[in-house]
Amino acid sequence: MTRLSIYVDFSGSAEALQLLREETKEHELIFANRPGGSVLAEAGADPKIAEADIAFGQPDPRGIEHAHRLKWIQVSSSGITRYDNPEFRALMAKRNIAVSNSASVYEEPCAIHALSFILAQARCLPTALASRADNGSAEWKALRNTCTLMRDKTVLIVGYGAIGRRLAELLKPFEAKVVAYRRKPRGDENVPMISQDQLAAALATVDHVVDILPDSTETRHFFDAARFAQMKRGAVFYNIGRGATVDQHALQETLRSHLAAAWLDVTEPEPLPAGHPLLSATNCFITPHIAGGHTNESGTLVRHFLKNLRRFLNIEALVDRVM
Amino acid sequence: MTRLSIYVDFSGSAEALQLLREETKEHELIFANRPGGSVLAEAGADPKIAEADIAFGQPDPRGIEHAHRLKWIQVSSSGITRYDNPEFRALMAKRNIAVSNSASVYEEPCAIHALSFILAQARCLPTALASRADNGSAEWKALRNTCTLMRDKTVLIVGYGAIGRRLAELLKPFEAKVVAYRRKPRGDENVPMISQDQLAAALATVDHVVDILPDSTETRHFFDAARFAQMKRGAVFYNIGRGATVDQHALQETLRSHLAAAWLDVTEPEPLPAGHPLLSATNCFITPHIAGGHTNESGTLVRHFLKNLRRFLNIEALVDRVM
Repeated sequence: MTRLSIYVDFSGSAEALQLLREETKEHELIFANRPGGSVLAEAGADPKIAEADIAFGQPDPRGIEHAHRLKWIQVSSSGITRYDNPEFRALMAKRNIAVSNSASVYEEPCAIHALSFILAQARCLPTALASRADNGSAEWKALRNTCTLMRDKTVLIVGYGAIGRRLAELLKPFEAKVVAYRRKPRGDENVPMISQDQLAAALATVDHVVDILPDSTETRHFFDAARFAQMKRGAVFYNIGRGATVDQHALQETLRSHLAAAWLDVTEPEPLPAGHPLLSATNCFITPHIAGGHTNESGTLVRHFLKNLRRFLNIEALVDRVM
Repeated sequence: MTRLSIYVDFSGSAEALQLLREETKEHELIFANRPGGSVLAEAGADPKIAEADIAFGQPDPRGIEHAHRLKWIQVSSSGITRYDNPEFRALMAKRNIAVSNSASVYEEPCAIHALSFILAQARCLPTALASRADNGSAEWKALRNTCTLMRDKTVLIVGYGAIGRRLAELLKPFEAKVVAYRRKPRGDENVPMISQDQLAAALATVDHVVDILPDSTETRHFFDAARFAQMKRGAVFYNIGRGATVDQHALQETLRSHLAAAWLDVTEPEPLPAGHPLLSATNCFITPHIAGGHTNESGTLVRHFLKNLRRFLNIEALVDRVM
């Protein structure tokens, strides 16, 4: 078997790193000086990557042009913002370097997180958990009447990849109407797809708009003042994609009158600085970019890498290949 | 068509009452002096019921023994605590009075409410919504690691009627293991049933315990110190049944060390008095008996009554008949 050099720029639990070491004994692991661990952190170029055949984790894109042996990068996140630009894609194509992400690690937690937002909104949890309304009181009646079911509601998923597909599966027994939008439909989607021409009309009718867009030059401020204005009065906006896909100034304006609420797992920047208007908006609910989190997440990421490593060694197609 | 006298002890929206009036024009509506509107309220005996053939709403049980023409009571709630005792059942049997509740109105909102609790717990929403943890910080990593999926979890539903069945349907795509307990299994349940003998062993292994028990002399303090002690350390307890099914002193004790959290839509009394220990427990989350609430709830209840009224007139079996 070929002995490979695997550059590891990954900050995982002791157990996860132990698993990685055990399962790669035939190879050499080169650990990064300052493991990044997050796709959004700036670890800085690391000369160590120059010796690597494979990179796992969040390698700084600036170091990769000097990595002349590199054949494959396994990114330990679903988002690939820092790699997703024409220059980097051209470099990968020119050098014949494969890039895979960890989307299949994150579809389950992210889909559940999105649904936890939708149901918390439907059942008025933020208000209800703070209320001690008496049975039969006006406050109690108003609260009960504000709670909703899903049967008569429409959900539009914008950015329809693995997470969106899983969310649609989880929503199925609720009998809500689920539709989706993606730039390039593949024809195998499990829900009706909305074309770009139909998007404005769809936004005008749906109750729940779920943004799962990745961050790219094309998706920047996809949800701007115009798109929010197209939405139905009283609609709810969710973002578990990337913060940069939303014009936050437009969002805070529309939350004052037009939208019922927003639930965000991602913002720009993260976290929002103290005093940011979205922090004090009573109908804006923010979790700190944890939608993908789950017990032993780094272990799941290592197992995903090891599965792909076997495929790489067997010259099989990589799972979650993105370049 | 027989002209019937319908005693209405029901506090609904103007639209709901309008619908009731329009659809019962052939009959006489006798409105209660002080409509109760909640199964838990004490409206007091109302002599007006003595003239009624049918009662709809929350008629005081004390007035019913004088209602010699009464043939059917449509209770406008799922819980029937105030009617569910041997004396009342004997009176209904002796007088040949049918009693139906509104369970099928409430299975959908209550099942969704229970799932909103389960997912809010799984995704750590109370902590996460209050956190502005930096990406990559120790707080952030701990929070992500505390979030869970449902795939590897077990849910035990205690009190398995229509709400439990619907909850199991909603849970299906999550691929959690769902089991249930009820006093008298019917054999047509859609999940594996736990017998009374197996209950202690089941409690020792499950992650989420959902109490949907009705209130009766047999279910009073069903969840007591002994049952909580049987539960797995770190399990989560939910109650969308009735507050009296839980020994709240035992619950507050077990929340200090043994259980991870409790989510309650019902308590005893409702609301809990200021200063009650469960209100200050940081891992106890309480909504004020709103699990059944939904937009135009009173309209749904009236439509449910009208559907049963047609069945009553056609001498067909009533939906949700309980006596």
